Amino acid sequence: MAREGRKRGGGRSARIAARQSNVAQTISFIERKIPYFEVLNDEALALIEYNAETVLEEIGIEFRDYPSALSLLKNAGADVDNERVRFPRGLCRQLLATAPSEYTQHARNSKRSTIIGGDRTVLVPAYGSPFIRNAEEGRRYATIEDFKNFVKLTYLSPGLHHSGGTVCEPVDIPVNKRHLDMVYSHIRYSDKPFMGSVTAPERAEDTVEMIKILFGSNEIQEKTVLTSLINANSPMTFDATMLGAATVYAENNQATMISPFILAGAMSPVSVAGTLTQILAEAMAGMSYIQCVRPGAPVVFGTFASALSMQSGAPTFGGPEPSLVIYGAAQLARRLNLPFRSGGGLCASKIPDAQAAYESANTLQTSALAGVNFMLHTAGWLEGGLSMGYEKFIIDADQANMIAVLLNGIDTSENGQALGALREIGPGAHFLGAAHTQTNFETAFYRSEIADNNSFEQWEEEGSRDAMQRAAEIWPRMLRDYEPPAIDPGVDEALREFISRRKAEFPDKDY
Amino acid sequence: MAREGRKRGGGRSARIAARQSNVAQTISFIERKIPYFEVLNDEALALIEYNAETVLEEIGIEFRDYPSALSLLKNAGADVDNERVRFPRGLCRQLLATAPSEYTQHARNSKRSTIIGGDRTVLVPAYGSPFIRNAEEGRRYATIEDFKNFVKLTYLSPGLHHSGGTVCEPVDIPVNKRHLDMVYSHIRYSDKPFMGSVTAPERAEDTVEMIKILFGSNEIQEKTVLTSLINANSPMTFDATMLGAATVYAENNQATMISPFILAGAMSPVSVAGTLTQILAEAMAGMSYIQCVRPGAPVVFGTFASALSMQSGAPTFGGPEPSLVIYGAAQLARRLNLPFRSGGGLCASKIPDAQAAYESANTLQTSALAGVNFMLHTAGWLEGGLSMGYEKFIIDADQANMIAVLLNGIDTSENGQALGALREIGPGAHFLGAAHTQTNFETAFYRSEIADNNSFEQWEEEGSRDAMQRAAEIWPRMLRDYEPPAIDPGVDEALREFISRRKAEFPDKDY
Repeated sequence: MAREGRKRGGGRSARIAARQSNVAQTISFIERKIPYFEVLNDEALALIEYNAETVLEEIGIEFRDYPSALSLLKNAGADVDNERVRFPRGLCRQLLATAPSEYTQHARNSKRSTIIGGDRTVLVPAYGSPFIRNAEEGRRYATIEDFKNFVKLTYLSPGLHHSGGTVCEPVDIPVNKRHLDMVYSHIRYSDKPFMGSVTAPERAEDTVEMIKILFGSNEIQEKTVLTSLINANSPMTFDATMLGAATVYAENNQATMISPFILAGAMSPVSVAGTLTQILAEAMAGMSYIQCVRPGAPVVFGTFASALSMQSGAPTFGGPEPSLVIYGAAQLARRLNLPFRSGGGLCASKIPDAQAAYESANTLQTSALAGVNFMLHTAGWLEGGLSMGYEKFIIDADQANMIAVLLNGIDTSENGQALGALREIGPGAHFLGAAHTQTNFETAFYRSEIADNNSFEQWEEEGSRDAMQRAAEIWPRMLRDYEPPAIDPGVDEALREFISRRKAEFPDKDY
Repeated sequence: MAREGRKRGGGRSARIAARQSNVAQTISFIERKIPYFEVLNDEALALIEYNAETVLEEIGIEFRDYPSALSLLKNAGADVDNERVRFPRGLCRQLLATAPSEYTQHARNSKRSTIIGGDRTVLVPAYGSPFIRNAEEGRRYATIEDFKNFVKLTYLSPGLHHSGGTVCEPVDIPVNKRHLDMVYSHIRYSDKPFMGSVTAPERAEDTVEMIKILFGSNEIQEKTVLTSLINANSPMTFDATMLGAATVYAENNQATMISPFILAGAMSPVSVAGTLTQILAEAMAGMSYIQCVRPGAPVVFGTFASALSMQSGAPTFGGPEPSLVIYGAAQLARRLNLPFRSGGGLCASKIPDAQAAYESANTLQTSALAGVNFMLHTAGWLEGGLSMGYEKFIIDADQANMIAVLLNGIDTSENGQALGALREIGPGAHFLGAAHTQTNFETAFYRSEIADNNSFEQWEEEGSRDAMQRAAEIWPRMLRDYEPPAIDPGVDEALREFISRRKAEFPDKDY
């Protein structure tokens, strides 16, 4: 389309029109029409559930340095011994009965409001990397400019339904202030839903203040507008930072994803079933706590699993064991009737090469088929999460588009059956001119922006470029053509004032 | 392991020992312990089956330039009008009742004999490319040396269960003679099962003569030792070359894979359901013909589907529509109770970059979960099948190993549950020293030979290599360390004599 534009002399304006049309086309979630892929039978699931209850009852979960959690859980019927909380068999399930099976996460543009849970899949960019990588500069620390760039690129990617959270760490801004710029960037440069800060309870409070400015103080008590990432400190521990942030969000009816963060073999047993047992116990304990804070506050069952290399101690991605963990955990979450977060384009590779793509594809396919509802890390992830890749983002976002087509399944309508075309063409001819082909060819098959399907000769003539080199041409063009969604100037002003005031209140801090 | 070897001064001999141990470890097929992933419900399947019968009955299939097929099919109850064969509704299913639901393909080393069908998956290298590519030479025409190299590399790859067929086209040998060298190479440089020549009926006969020398003339009438690839000339046509080769194999109780070869949109309707309908009709017609030749001869339901780019006319791979075709066709094959062939590491990319890996992974994952029994093109495929890549082969073979782990599912034995480890470690500690970890760490998680999971700094220090560059070090080392499996010198002599005689009988021919 861009090429067409140039030919017609449309240039930048034609490209912008195409991009705007992409933005307009963005659906707010995928509604799957194909079954889940399930690897565990009912007996195996019941066994893991039984064992998780054993962990909760006998071993217990530590809630560290956060006394209010201990008293809430004690009141709810848990057995509290110092910071160790043991849950009598069945208590967590009982507490989780108040958690919604799905919830709407509202966006400032109501067309972008999404639903988390049920048969829906929401694709979200990668989260948390201190570095960025691109073809021109290589790897360097991320800045707020990079952060804004990834918010803009996500805004322009029809396959990504959610703006994400810490799309990269803007290390050029002090740690205790950068959350303000991050939240503002999500609000200002996109109109898709986003995630809140979790690195300290007061930063969660700042995030809540900002959404109050954006949506109204009373409104957010009714509407969930944030879904934020609360990692467990596996094994079997929650710390005060995460508990504090989670508490702020839950008190304000904002969603939290309780995510055991597991490098299996180090932070969980060196087996898939053992790891699933621990994940279920940790997630149930954390989500139960949220229900004690505010019954009915949305929670998401989270899972992040890497298999540790038992030879080098390094985390690995895209292997079969983490895939089995995702399949199994998705089943366990469905049996709790709760939304599930996992997956994405995870890889250990430092660059967007064949290793990166194989590992990412294995995780993306698994997550799509397993029925992940909130697919964090869908685009951009490199190097075990240490780097956010510009070209990797573009390549992954193309795959995100394909996931929507895959989950849409097979059209068996009369048009899909195409018996007329079979009758029209018959043996030995070709279908290019068939009436059915003419009617359907524009939308029939997914068209990748990144794949080079040309002949070898043409590819060679065009410079023998690999996927990374082609992607390196796409994202700068997208950023050049980017135009921000409109925002109420009064709201924008109020947000900026709030940020200035908060920044002035504190000395810079690097933790 | 290789590095360990060098340190101990073991060098080549240590590496050879490791490779031999790889060879010894080769299992002869994967027996899946997880369910199939199925995208179509019974109603949709019945609809496609009904429509396929409509195609068979109303439109019919052409059997071209091969009169004996027409008379056989007529005798079986088909309606033959010139070369158009129409099958009354239900006739194909009736004829297919004699086809075995699974069969053993014997190898000259009985430990490598494999079973095609049922819950088993057999992984097979790529097939048919006239070019090879490697990091050092780039792309060039393939030779018989390349052919031998890929047979050897497959022999040394524990995740590949089958030696394949035309692993590349040895274009340095005349077309009418190269099949002799190809079949000989499979026999001499490997002891895994392999495929026969299909490019002319007399070449199929030569293949049969050679397996008679290897296994005995009477033995092969009882034992299937070849599985050969018979493409339909889609849409709805079989040609004399393929019919002739198929007939030779079927008459000798050797297996054929009847594979509609579809670039959807050109050779089938531009829809998944329409394409599935045509595939089912073509496969049923071809397999029914085989059952007319020799009731009980093993047949495999084949599917090769690419979605044509409706913009450029180029074949595309790894997209969602071909995946849906594979899922659907596997279900249709299972409902016929017949083995199914499809899939592999298909891609359009010219080099083993992120495009190649994403496309290949999407097809491999799909094929594994769909329940493909004979997974042709598992390793090496590049450029829509025009090139066989040395580095791509190594990267894909690593993925083949992972598929075996994935299909093995989740171990829920007491050891798998690891409750003891959870009790031993508890909150906040790590599992590295746990008794369970110590017992299981060597086999717990799949260990990739290609993935670089090291730190960024270490990766940079080692030259910032991508997956292709790392793979480029592996295959030459494998070939240096390769040692051929033993063969009876008398058999070897007889095979060589047969080849010399046949080569002398014909002038060189390039078709």
